[in-house]
Amino acid sequence: LPSDRDLDAETPLDVGLLSPVTAGHDQVVSDAAFLDALVTAELGLSAARASLTDDDADGFAAIGWQRGHIFRGHGLSAGALARAAVDGGNPVIPLVGRLRSRFDGAVGRDIHRGATSQDILDTALMLIATRVRRELVVTLSAIDAALVRIARDRRDQVAAARTLTQHAVPTTVGLRVANWLRGVRRARLRLDRLTLPAQLGGAGGTLAAFTVGADAVDPTTLPALFALELGLDVPDAPWHTTRWPMTELGDALVQIVDAMGVIATDVATLSRTEIAEMSEGSPGGSSAMPQKRNPTRSVLIRSAALRAPNLGATLHTAAALAGDERPDGAWHAEWPTLRELMRLVLGATANARTVLEDLRIDDAAVGRNLALTGEPLLAERASLEGGALGSSDPADYTGIAGVLVDRVVEDSP
Amino acid sequence: LPSDRDLDAETPLDVGLLSPVTAGHDQVVSDAAFLDALVTAELGLSAARASLTDDDADGFAAIGWQRGHIFRGHGLSAGALARAAVDGGNPVIPLVGRLRSRFDGAVGRDIHRGATSQDILDTALMLIATRVRRELVVTLSAIDAALVRIARDRRDQVAAARTLTQHAVPTTVGLRVANWLRGVRRARLRLDRLTLPAQLGGAGGTLAAFTVGADAVDPTTLPALFALELGLDVPDAPWHTTRWPMTELGDALVQIVDAMGVIATDVATLSRTEIAEMSEGSPGGSSAMPQKRNPTRSVLIRSAALRAPNLGATLHTAAALAGDERPDGAWHAEWPTLRELMRLVLGATANARTVLEDLRIDDAAVGRNLALTGEPLLAERASLEGGALGSSDPADYTGIAGVLVDRVVEDSP
Amino acid sequence: LPSDRDLDAETPLDVGLLSPVTAGHDQVVSDAAFLDALVTAELGLSAARASLTDDDADGFAAIGWQRGHIFRGHGLSAGALARAAVDGGNPVIPLVGRLRSRFDGAVGRDIHRGATSQDILDTALMLIATRVRRELVVTLSAIDAALVRIARDRRDQVAAARTLTQHAVPTTVGLRVANWLRGVRRARLRLDRLTLPAQLGGAGGTLAAFTVGADAVDPTTLPALFALELGLDVPDAPWHTTRWPMTELGDALVQIVDAMGVIATDVATLSRTEIAEMSEGSPGGSSAMPQKRNPTRSVLIRSAALRAPNLGATLHTAAALAGDERPDGAWHAEWPTLRELMRLVLGATANARTVLEDLRIDDAAVGRNLALTGEPLLAERASLEGGALGSSDPADYTGIAGVLVDRVVEDSP
Amino acid sequence: LPSDRDLDAETPLDVGLLSPVTAGHDQVVSDAAFLDALVTAELGLSAARASLTDDDADGFAAIGWQRGHIFRGHGLSAGALARAAVDGGNPVIPLVGRLRSRFDGAVGRDIHRGATSQDILDTALMLIATRVRRELVVTLSAIDAALVRIARDRRDQVAAARTLTQHAVPTTVGLRVANWLRGVRRARLRLDRLTLPAQLGGAGGTLAAFTVGADAVDPTTLPALFALELGLDVPDAPWHTTRWPMTELGDALVQIVDAMGVIATDVATLSRTEIAEMSEGSPGGSSAMPQKRNPTRSVLIRSAALRAPNLGATLHTAAALAGDERPDGAWHAEWPTLRELMRLVLGATANARTVLEDLRIDDAAVGRNLALTGEPLLAERASLEGGALGSSDPADYTGIAGVLVDRVVEDSP
Repeated sequence: LPSDRDLDAETPLDVGLLSPVTAGHDQVVSDAAFLDALVTAELGLSAARASLTDDDADGFAAIGWQRGHIFRGHGLSAGALARAAVDGGNPVIPLVGRLRSRFDGAVGRDIHRGATSQDILDTALMLIATRVRRELVVTLSAIDAALVRIARDRRDQVAAARTLTQHAVPTTVGLRVANWLRGVRRARLRLDRLTLPAQLGGAGGTLAAFTVGADAVDPTTLPALFALELGLDVPDAPWHTTRWPMTELGDALVQIVDAMGVIATDVATLSRTEIAEMSEGSPGGSSAMPQKRNPTRSVLIRSAALRAPNLGATLHTAAALAGDERPDGAWHAEWPTLRELMRLVLGATANARTVLEDLRIDDAAVGRNLALTGEPLLAERASLEGGALGSSDPADYTGIAGVLVDRVVEDSP
Repeated sequence: LPSDRDLDAETPLDVGLLSPVTAGHDQVVSDAAFLDALVTAELGLSAARASLTDDDADGFAAIGWQRGHIFRGHGLSAGALARAAVDGGNPVIPLVGRLRSRFDGAVGRDIHRGATSQDILDTALMLIATRVRRELVVTLSAIDAALVRIARDRRDQVAAARTLTQHAVPTTVGLRVANWLRGVRRARLRLDRLTLPAQLGGAGGTLAAFTVGADAVDPTTLPALFALELGLDVPDAPWHTTRWPMTELGDALVQIVDAMGVIATDVATLSRTEIAEMSEGSPGGSSAMPQKRNPTRSVLIRSAALRAPNLGATLHTAAALAGDERPDGAWHAEWPTLRELMRLVLGATANARTVLEDLRIDDAAVGRNLALTGEPLLAERASLEGGALGSSDPADYTGIAGVLVDRVVEDSP
Repeated sequence: LPSDRDLDAETPLDVGLLSPVTAGHDQVVSDAAFLDALVTAELGLSAARASLTDDDADGFAAIGWQRGHIFRGHGLSAGALARAAVDGGNPVIPLVGRLRSRFDGAVGRDIHRGATSQDILDTALMLIATRVRRELVVTLSAIDAALVRIARDRRDQVAAARTLTQHAVPTTVGLRVANWLRGVRRARLRLDRLTLPAQLGGAGGTLAAFTVGADAVDPTTLPALFALELGLDVPDAPWHTTRWPMTELGDALVQIVDAMGVIATDVATLSRTEIAEMSEGSPGGSSAMPQKRNPTRSVLIRSAALRAPNLGATLHTAAALAGDERPDGAWHAEWPTLRELMRLVLGATANARTVLEDLRIDDAAVGRNLALTGEPLLAERASLEGGALGSSDPADYTGIAGVLVDRVVEDSP
Repeated sequence: LPSDRDLDAETPLDVGLLSPVTAGHDQVVSDAAFLDALVTAELGLSAARASLTDDDADGFAAIGWQRGHIFRGHGLSAGALARAAVDGGNPVIPLVGRLRSRFDGAVGRDIHRGATSQDILDTALMLIATRVRRELVVTLSAIDAALVRIARDRRDQVAAARTLTQHAVPTTVGLRVANWLRGVRRARLRLDRLTLPAQLGGAGGTLAAFTVGADAVDPTTLPALFALELGLDVPDAPWHTTRWPMTELGDALVQIVDAMGVIATDVATLSRTEIAEMSEGSPGGSSAMPQKRNPTRSVLIRSAALRAPNLGATLHTAAALAGDERPDGAWHAEWPTLRELMRLVLGATANARTVLEDLRIDDAAVGRNLALTGEPLLAERASLEGGALGSSDPADYTGIAGVLVDRVVEDSP
């Protein structure tokens, strides 16, 4: 039998087979990316220390260190490190030895000096989060543009509003889409405002180890230099057990997925055979039924939306149990949870972008459904107007839908 | 006005027996309080409408309506309304009829005119949230003051830092408490910045019903007047399916409980018989063992911390499934979930305040535990200093613990 | 006996206003019911002890004690007890004193002797669970009967199957309903097989306190007698920290709600204005739109289905953290969580029963939707049959739908 | 720089770096394993069909098909399939084409004929679940043996019982361990009793496609033959939307993790520097502190215990939303969730086995802690005995601890 298994090599994350919503969108949170981030955190600390001591700037230049960039020239293997991580319970412990043996001079000598595993791992998570945020900004901007276009184009297209599954009163396609956009914009706002701080506290959160020995550095300055070296926010203090940077990040990511979930829920519903007002531009096929035009991406986004909230909750549970100076399990629960949440948000937004950039709206279906209920769609109006009935055109009973669309559209982010 | 309130018990909330963490702290989220809020929302809408039409301001004065206040003079029974709410699926439907029959003139005539149930119920939830926030501000301020006091008093008291359950290096009691405070302050910040908007969209989110008939009012102005009448934030648009006001509120409440959870986890651990560094001022007794001095309030707070995150997650799941113009179950899932979350945060903070205002710290135990590990507590230092060992006094190896305490303490909220 | 119960309202549960899905169905889990259960647990322990010592059986007869029944003649107030429960962190501590002062002789003298709070509270939770189970058996039986009737009546009614929101191939209404029934029956099976044990271990789980003093009794026998006195399962050992009775109960309850959720999801979808194949017999009205016929009960059931899983998860988290001989918060987190889960399952099933006993199926709509897709509904068949196309009647392409219905229907529980 | 990245090739699952609790234990749920299972499900269906039609048994022999075994000789790439899976939303669609082109004769010709993607994917998940169960049985048996040994050895070793963090009364080390064992055994029982059925329903759950064309087979027999070919349980009917096989599996897995969580919580607590009654045989080191002896594996197990319940909850939410004949997102949410849950249970049990097979108990510390509280540990006894105090030896106040140990130990699974 022929084999295509050798294609596997370049697969970024080996859990894609059961996760089509994230497949192809998660390189930035792969093990390889986390390894890069861990190494970057360690080197960033050394570089920050060197900048305080005027030590061997050449050494950093020589290895290709660039402030604010992820360092990839380490030649380490994520798999080997993962296996070595079990005994100590985290990958930083075996990483330190490997790095020290790979780099010499000031670069290698002071690797990890004064730090604790959590300093490096939390910082690496935040570094990854900045890359996730960067991708999200691009994707959410594209989603924003697509939604603005649709909302504008459909500003006055009257459609049946549905509440508790039933036709209610008229609304417009534009307002429906503008409401999606408002959810996206608010989620984007929280993303933009996130604090993603470096972590530096040393073994007990006192930075004591930076203050002793021949290599002592100023522990009130080092954390800021460390953060700036990496392009992260400057921490006000170590946050080993004060985990709001994790939960605020998690909450913001879940909020983005929520916004995608609402869009996908509406697209899936409006794609129903009997409704057919919307459809995806590239619907999915079926393994058995040639005629099927499934709203596959919306379905996948919804699957992410059903999963994300409970991952966010786990981050909160971990935050609430972050006792002692570093806790006995709560911290470890965060890593894979945050990673999976970041994967979900990347996948959900990427799929939503595809859906929205090629969303099909069937004018005939919109009109047909509007006509289906007919007069009762104006029953509220009739009851308010009493005897003197006004127009029976649904378009005359859309209130300030257009104004609401304009407000959102004009309020560009 | 006739009254059936005397049918109701004065019981604050009839699920206190199994919820000692909230018992006595949850009046503000009781059914009676929600009924008041629902009535206030309805009257607030009528008052806003009247302020636009110069209609019958006297009528509102006559019934005692006061802008920005909860209206209690309605004489309705929460229990009776709850029972009447089942058929329509929400309490607003039966409420409208009752209110119309209770009030006459402009007050009663236009009750609910143009609105939908969700306008009133969401607005009532936000009204309750403002009262919860008010209580939280008081309690969190007291917690803040207590923590500042302890952190200052204990700024330089050396103690063993514990990581992964094991003695690690020295830290200070002050720094531990300052870290608690940082969590509290950040949670407070999010609470302060919450947007708690009124909801007003009418049946389909277009405000169409406000634009028709003899009583038409300006639908671009009414929502703001409605919000201001009630002391709520002015909504940028209806948010029937754009549920970030709910999830951001939920996230902020969970974050507060997380901060309490960390404190309680530490107090419980440090109260352990073998550690005994801290104890509650009013420990709990046992039904069987006369000698027991349980850290009962910390235990109760931890029970809240284990429950809150999953409630927050339910709010997110509901937000992500808020399809159509009003959804088929997701919205209804929010009400009791948010209420229970508000109860938990009220209870957790109230108990934490009691714990912290009377927290006992046993200096002898702190010293004894510090001495227990002895030299190895400075092993990190020794390894960093190489041959030339410095002081073996743990107090000399607390890094910038004091500086970190000062930073937090001086950064008063 | 003196009574302070009249201080309590007859209000079934004072959180009904925001929980229409449970309103009217939750008396069995009210605070009053829990108080009864707590008292019954205490008296049951005294009665079990008395049966071992031949002590004062007359005393128990005199107060009206009946084996296997809930004891209600105590005259205590749940509200007062709730308020007294805060200091000790649970209601058993203040309960013991009240009971001792209310009952004399063997009944009162040995109240709680040898027991710990958790013995009584866990046992009371299990007592309540038996009552919840009893109600569920009745409701699920009625649901079963309704589903059998519909499945039989609609055994051969051809309808469009929908997958990923799209018409797929033909199925039958009967098979759809039979699938609902299979979910209900499986959930019922787990309910029936639940172990609901009494709890008796004493302060440290060793039953030591029962072995000492003049009133020593056989601690290997007492737990069984205690369980039998109350109609609970005999525990194999104390389960203070071995919490599978809680999580298995929780899982079973969530599974029931899941089964209701599937039904409600289908009814809500099939009630959509454009589909209209099903509708509730007593649909909900709207506060604004006279024409609305909302599938309100399905919406409410869905709201329960969105909430229940996370409550079940909290029980598991608590179970996993049940450390020491009795834990520092995990146990306390269970009580209100289990209670709310029991409320939800009672409410969801009661509403589902109402929906199913009066479910309307619109034959014309079923046929119209089937015809909507037409030939493509048989595309799979055509692709399998190749050139030689068979019948184009959808009824000829329903496979073994009828056989599957028969299997389920005949397999009466 | 030298590179060890080529070690990566054999890494079974590329998300190990952030998941030390599962690293090295999750091959059975890797993408490669799922690909094998998907192929096995497809071939199993063809083989079952062939066994009904006496078709080409030789062809199956020729490719190495073995009943009840996972088929690995397919030469396909999981990564390539994952990428191809996005458009259709699941990996089965691209798999079918690949398989048909790889196999000829009866083996290849009828691949997937009559089936739907969900038939294959659900069946593959159940196949993986059987392998997970097999591993769990081995690991749980080893855990059982280790616990029996410790419980027996320590049957009468008196120790302080701790409730709400405080010393309470005496208990024994043996009873503590026996309680762990009871949790493990119960979880094992549920694992053993799981129903893991094959899935076969065709596009609409009617098995219609199997009944038409020249290759029609008996659709009432085929599902059973399919299941038996694969070593799975025979389904009573298709369960496309009746998802209890998923949630019961999930609940059982969470229950196992819960049992591990209790053990790990106790080991972590009892390892505390101040308590020191227990320690792991191979404690973890620190990246900074040479003296640290962290209970690393217990910490990792606890991290799994904090994550598992919310994954189980997601399975329930998905089950409750499994509407239509196949739902619009709920099903897709199950796959990665179940996989991660299976990973966690494999990792948690493997680590628990290591902990328990080499658990260290420090007799001196047990005795020292017991003496720490002294007489008050017998305060309950004193209060029960009144004036006539008995022995003041804690060993005389352990009730039936030994009997409880014996019961558990003798009740071998």
